[in-house]
Amino acid sequence: MIYLDHAAATPISSRVFDAMKPYFSEDFFNPSAAYLPAKKVASDYEAAKRVIAHAIGAKYSDLVMTAGATEANNLAFNATDGKVLYLITEHDSVRKVAEQHGGAPINVDKNGRILLDDLKSKMTDEIMLISVALVNNELGTIQPLSEIAAYIREVRLDRLSRGIKQPLYLHSDASQALNLLNVNVARLGVDLLTLNAAKIYGPKAVGALYVSRDVKLSPLSVGGGQEMGLRSGTENVPGVIGFAKAVEETCKHLNGNRKKYAKFKQIILSELKDYELINKKHSLDSFVVLCYNGIDAERLVFLLEDKGVYVSTGAACAASKGEKSHVLAAIGLSDSEIAGSLRLTFGETNSEEQIHEAAKFINEAVETERSRHA
Amino acid sequence: MIYLDHAAATPISSRVFDAMKPYFSEDFFNPSAAYLPAKKVASDYEAAKRVIAHAIGAKYSDLVMTAGATEANNLAFNATDGKVLYLITEHDSVRKVAEQHGGAPINVDKNGRILLDDLKSKMTDEIMLISVALVNNELGTIQPLSEIAAYIREVRLDRLSRGIKQPLYLHSDASQALNLLNVNVARLGVDLLTLNAAKIYGPKAVGALYVSRDVKLSPLSVGGGQEMGLRSGTENVPGVIGFAKAVEETCKHLNGNRKKYAKFKQIILSELKDYELINKKHSLDSFVVLCYNGIDAERLVFLLEDKGVYVSTGAACAASKGEKSHVLAAIGLSDSEIAGSLRLTFGETNSEEQIHEAAKFINEAVETERSRHA
Repeated sequence: MIYLDHAAATPISSRVFDAMKPYFSEDFFNPSAAYLPAKKVASDYEAAKRVIAHAIGAKYSDLVMTAGATEANNLAFNATDGKVLYLITEHDSVRKVAEQHGGAPINVDKNGRILLDDLKSKMTDEIMLISVALVNNELGTIQPLSEIAAYIREVRLDRLSRGIKQPLYLHSDASQALNLLNVNVARLGVDLLTLNAAKIYGPKAVGALYVSRDVKLSPLSVGGGQEMGLRSGTENVPGVIGFAKAVEETCKHLNGNRKKYAKFKQIILSELKDYELINKKHSLDSFVVLCYNGIDAERLVFLLEDKGVYVSTGAACAASKGEKSHVLAAIGLSDSEIAGSLRLTFGETNSEEQIHEAAKFINEAVETERSRHA
Repeated sequence: MIYLDHAAATPISSRVFDAMKPYFSEDFFNPSAAYLPAKKVASDYEAAKRVIAHAIGAKYSDLVMTAGATEANNLAFNATDGKVLYLITEHDSVRKVAEQHGGAPINVDKNGRILLDDLKSKMTDEIMLISVALVNNELGTIQPLSEIAAYIREVRLDRLSRGIKQPLYLHSDASQALNLLNVNVARLGVDLLTLNAAKIYGPKAVGALYVSRDVKLSPLSVGGGQEMGLRSGTENVPGVIGFAKAVEETCKHLNGNRKKYAKFKQIILSELKDYELINKKHSLDSFVVLCYNGIDAERLVFLLEDKGVYVSTGAACAASKGEKSHVLAAIGLSDSEIAGSLRLTFGETNSEEQIHEAAKFINEAVETERSRHA
C-alpha cells in the first residue's frame, strides 16, 4: 500500500495507541467522580490538555476539547452574534456555519492566498469574526495569519478611537497545520484556533478549540458543565490522552518531517510527467496538487487503487458527494481543470521508495487515460 | 477494588477493545474517501450502526451518531421550535437544554415516577417535545414510557381533530437503560431516543440519537454533511464499532445480568444496617440508593475509598460541582436526607463476594461516622 491521502486521515501511531490504552480499561473512571482513582484520571486528562495547550503557546484553561475540528469550528462561530467574514477556500465546517451567520467570503489569489485588499474592502463595523484556515485542506496553502492579525489590530484601534464597541475576533482552523508548522497563538495573533487530532496520527473525533480569554463564547451543547461549561459531556479521556501524545510526537518530528516531505515533493515533481502543478507557492511540502487537464482524475483514483496507491481528488467529505471543489474553483481553475486535479498528501506512512513507485504508477495511469481519449 | 459506580462510567470490555483496535491502525481510512479500503471502513461503520439500530428495533438510517449522550440529548431538542416539557429528574444535559427552550418540568412521585396527571395538566397546544428518561441516572427509576406515549397519541388525535398542526414528539434518554432493559423504539412509542456507549462497556464520548422519520431535525453543527447532514465531522469509526460490540454483548447478557443484579441488591440490602432505601420501587436492580440520615455521605465516599470501595453520592458531573441533587429533592427528600444519600450501581466488574465485602465496609464506615457524631 502506498497511502498518499494523509490530509484525509492518518493512522494512530503506536505510541499514541499505547498512551490511550490504559484509559479504556484500568483507568476508565469518570473524571468527575469523587474518589481517588477518578481524580487521578481527571489529573491525567488535565495534564494532557496542558501538553496540547503548551504546544501552541497557550494555557490549559484556554482549551475546550471537542469531538473533532468540525465541532470546534462550529463552536468558534458561537463567539459571534455579529457579521462574519471567511476565506472562500475554507473547509465546509467553516464555510457552512459562516453561511448560517450570513457571512461574506474573502477571495484568494491563484495560489489560494488571501487577498488582503478584498478583506479590507469587506470590513465594516458590524464584522465580529473573521475565519481563515492556517493551512488549506485541499491545497496546503499557508495563510499569512500574522499579517491578517496585524490588520485586525488596526481595525480594533480604529473602532476604539471612534467609540465603536463591536469586538473583532480572528479564528483559524489549524487542522492541517500541526504536522509541519510551529503553531503559536500569540505569534499568529489568533483569538480562536481549531486543532484536530485525526490529522496528526491521533484519534478520530478528537479536537480542540483554543479560546483567548477576551472572547465570550457560548456552548453548542449544555449539560454537566465540563470544559468550563463550554462543552458538556463526559470527557473523552483516552481520546485526549492520545491527542496529547500525537502533539508531542508531531512537535518532535517537525523539522525532520519538513525536510523529508520537501524531498518527497521534489522527487515526485521531477519524476511525474505532463502535469501542471496547482499549488506552486506558499504551500506545505506535504501537499502536492496536480492537474492533468482533459483527464478525469476520479478515474486516476480508481486506476491507482488497483496498484495499491491511494490518492484523492480533494477533500474526502466533498469528494464523496461528487461536489466540484470550491477551493479549486476559487483559485480560478476551469471545470475541466478541476476535473483533472489530483491531491497527494505525504505522511508518516511513506518512504522515499514509495514516492518513486507512486510516480511510476501515476505516470502509467495518466498514460492509460490519455490513450483512452486519443 | 470494589467498583460500585457503574452508572458513572464502565470500563471497556476486552471484546469491545479488540473490535475497535484495527480501526485505529490498519483500517484508519476516512470513510468518505473514494478508494476501496476506505469504502470497506465506511461499510464496516454502516454495519456497526445497523447492529445498534436493530438492537432497538430501528433502521440504520434512523440513527445519528454523536459524541455521547449529552450531544444526543441536545440534538433531540433541535427537533423543536415550540414549547417543551421535561421530567424534573432529568440529567443536566436534558434539563439545561430544556430550560434554554423555556421548558416546564413535570413532577414525580416519591419513587421518582412521572406524575401523569401533572403532565396532563401542563399539556397545551404549544408543546412540541416531551423528554422523559427511560431510566433515571441517580435512582434507576424506570419510567412508564409506553403509557406516556399512549397519552401523547391521544393528544395528537385531539389536535388533529381540532385542526391544530403543531406536532408532538416524545424524547427519551435511554443512557442508563440498555444494560438491563430490552429497549424497542416502537414498543416504547418514542420519536427520539438517546443512547450512550459509555454506560454499557463501550467507549466514552460515543452515543447516538434515534430519530423517527416523522421528526424534522436540524443539526447542532454543520460541515461535511456526514450522518445525513445531521451531524457533520469525520466519523468516529473505532468508537462506533466499539459501541456496536458493546450493544451486542449487552443484549446477550441481559437476562443473566438482571438475575445477577437482583441477587446483589438482595444481598446488600439484607447485610447493610440502619439505612433507608430510597429507590424502593420501579427501579433497575443495578441501582441501590441508600439514605443514612444525619450522616454526610461524602464522608462515607472518602472512608470507603480508603478500603478500595468506590461509590458516589449521585451523578458524577453534579457531585463534582458540590451541587445538591435535584433528583433527590424532586422525590421529596429533605436537605439532610439528601446529604446522607449514597448511590451504589452494580456492573460487570462485580462479583458476589465483592457485594458481601462492600456491605461490611459500608457498615463499618457508617459506624465510624455515627460514632464521630455521638
